[in-house]
Amino acid sequence: MKTTRPIFTSPQDVETAFYEALERADLDAMMAVWAEDEEVVCVHPGGPRITGYAAVREVWRRMFEAGSRLRIRLSEPTMVQNPFTAIQTVREQISVVGDEELRAPVIATNVYVRGALGWRLVLHHASPAPPAPASENPKTLH
Amino acid sequence: MKTTRPIFTSPQDVETAFYEALERADLDAMMAVWAEDEEVVCVHPGGPRITGYAAVREVWRRMFEAGSRLRIRLSEPTMVQNPFTAIQTVREQISVVGDEELRAPVIATNVYVRGALGWRLVLHHASPAPPAPASENPKTLH
Repeated sequence: MKTTRPIFTSPQDVETAFYEALERADLDAMMAVWAEDEEVVCVHPGGPRITGYAAVREVWRRMFEAGSRLRIRLSEPTMVQNPFTAIQTVREQISVVGDEELRAPVIATNVYVRGALGWRLVLHHASPAPPAPASENPKTLH
Repeated sequence: MKTTRPIFTSPQDVETAFYEALERADLDAMMAVWAEDEEVVCVHPGGPRITGYAAVREVWRRMFEAGSRLRIRLSEPTMVQNPFTAIQTVREQISVVGDEELRAPVIATNVYVRGALGWRLVLHHASPAPPAPASENPKTLH
């Protein structure tokens, strides 16, 4: 029943595959980026902590079945990397396709780990970001 | 001006020192656990992403000067570890000393990295957790 999983040769490959799967609402592609481990963790903005590959799969399945298609714009990445691990944070600007109103921005931490089968995602922790400081907003005079 | 920094020989030592420093509101002890790196990241619950050692120090300084003393109870830890990195998530139950009312629970991701000077914290991402599911609450019949 199981299809061959892709081999990701860099954390960036995993990141690209993760956000593409999210935008396409493609469950198989999404789960191919995750390490098959009981300690993987996924936190959606405002949601509970989900632990373990099977539980993480179930949450994505329900989210994708709910039907909203998302577009995600990434900015301001940070990265700490060593030979076996890459720790990334990034700002996600999420919008719903067909709905012009932007959702609030999100701060995401993604951790990628290199194993025998290449790089995989072991943690995605996303939480709502506060509004940008006033200095970053367009000035209004009255 | 600089005092000698302690050497932490395990991620657990860093974790213990981090939460003790937080409870004691001890800025020097807090900053001793962080890697002196421009890519370290700290996100307080509901707060912005703070990047870089100096900026992270400034946020803790302001928080500790504000004066509230906190008690933090940790539960349900997860850990993914390899020789150079430990990725932890944990539930924090934070209470304010002198105020019986508990604050909402928090989900925290902590990432510890091993360098030439032992283990250090490179990321603390904390965000509000949703209320526990009804099944975990005491039953009320009417």
